[in-house]
Amino acid sequence: MTEQHIAKVFDRDLEGIQARIMKMGGLVEAAILGAAQSLASRDVELAEKVRAGDAAIDDLEVLINEETARLLALRSPTAGDLRLVLTVMKISGNLERIGDYAKNIAKRTGVLTQLPPVNGSTASLKRMAREVELMLKDALDAYIQRDAELAKDVIERDREVDQMYNALFREFLTFMMEDPRSITACMHLHFIAKNTERMGDHVTGIAEQVIYLVTGERPDETRVKADDTSVSVLEG
Amino acid sequence: MTEQHIAKVFDRDLEGIQARIMKMGGLVEAAILGAAQSLASRDVELAEKVRAGDAAIDDLEVLINEETARLLALRSPTAGDLRLVLTVMKISGNLERIGDYAKNIAKRTGVLTQLPPVNGSTASLKRMAREVELMLKDALDAYIQRDAELAKDVIERDREVDQMYNALFREFLTFMMEDPRSITACMHLHFIAKNTERMGDHVTGIAEQVIYLVTGERPDETRVKADDTSVSVLEG
Repeated sequence: MTEQHIAKVFDRDLEGIQARIMKMGGLVEAAILGAAQSLASRDVELAEKVRAGDAAIDDLEVLINEETARLLALRSPTAGDLRLVLTVMKISGNLERIGDYAKNIAKRTGVLTQLPPVNGSTASLKRMAREVELMLKDALDAYIQRDAELAKDVIERDREVDQMYNALFREFLTFMMEDPRSITACMHLHFIAKNTERMGDHVTGIAEQVIYLVTGERPDETRVKADDTSVSVLEG
Repeated sequence: MTEQHIAKVFDRDLEGIQARIMKMGGLVEAAILGAAQSLASRDVELAEKVRAGDAAIDDLEVLINEETARLLALRSPTAGDLRLVLTVMKISGNLERIGDYAKNIAKRTGVLTQLPPVNGSTASLKRMAREVELMLKDALDAYIQRDAELAKDVIERDREVDQMYNALFREFLTFMMEDPRSITACMHLHFIAKNTERMGDHVTGIAEQVIYLVTGERPDETRVKADDTSVSVLEG
């Protein structure tokens, strides 16, 4: 095989893997929206669909892992090609985790429908999930277009998601103190808010991979980290 | 270079990376115990040490990532050697996340010392953290000794950690309902319990990597998954 031929085979293999990443991204976006929708409309059937759909996302990750391993073994990529393969592995790992969070949110819908609703908080949760879904769409676009600026913008927007989470955390504390009967529901809603905020962190992880892929540099770790959020709310 | 020579160089490089994994494992074990200890004894100084120490764990992960990428690029390992390199990457990722959870727990110690203590719950949390630390020690031993049986045992023990978490979740709900003034502290303690339970999941992830490394097979996904715990508590 000539070098040119090897390069072509590598590109074709990689294209196949990238197509799977995009498919996985589409499923994960749908899972985020489905989970938020099922919660807002107390739709147990939709929640069950999201829950069951996570297996397809997991399967894609396993497949991508196998295919990248095969690519590494057979094509021994170096430099930029190797960096790309490693990036793909990390992105599929992040997508799998976001899918898991969506599934976990959907699981709680069933429990929450058996409890009295808590003051419009599901609408805020849905807005937050919608924002994370848009960030994910942009992070994947940034990946396809090798657009480091768009990726930076996604990372920036994660601050807003953290702020939404902080506001919700404060709200839940207030609800629980005002009405102890709402404690169980609020604990579940808080889990959902936290899971959504963690999804945003994983979207940020994807955006950071894009920046690394394009610039070769790791972004600064200066932004407020995930779990600081509710700590600072109560310290302040 | 002869093939034998290449193999020797690969082994030497890999040994260096494995030494870093062990160092990272040691730091993470210490972080788990330190976080639990600082919480139980309301020791803000120790908590601060755990918090600051996470940077060294993160640095090791970056280093391991760079070294495995270099190994892939220069030595182009295949078959078992490739599987080993991929395993090392996943294990260091798991260790980094466990370190993050320990840091997050330590962060809450400062907040909790400003709130009235909640009925002996920090002792239960410490027991839970101690169990996770022992599981991690065994998972890393299983990795070094290529001991799939020990790895399976670690995965089995994660069920106990899930049960400890379930018991704590129920306890916190009761405390909050009985005394709404404890709500803020209980929310933080619940976070800590959840973070510890997630640590157990990542230790399980390491053990699963060991099984894959030794047997070439992925363990069944039959065990109770992380976030089902408190859902089933309230469904049951």
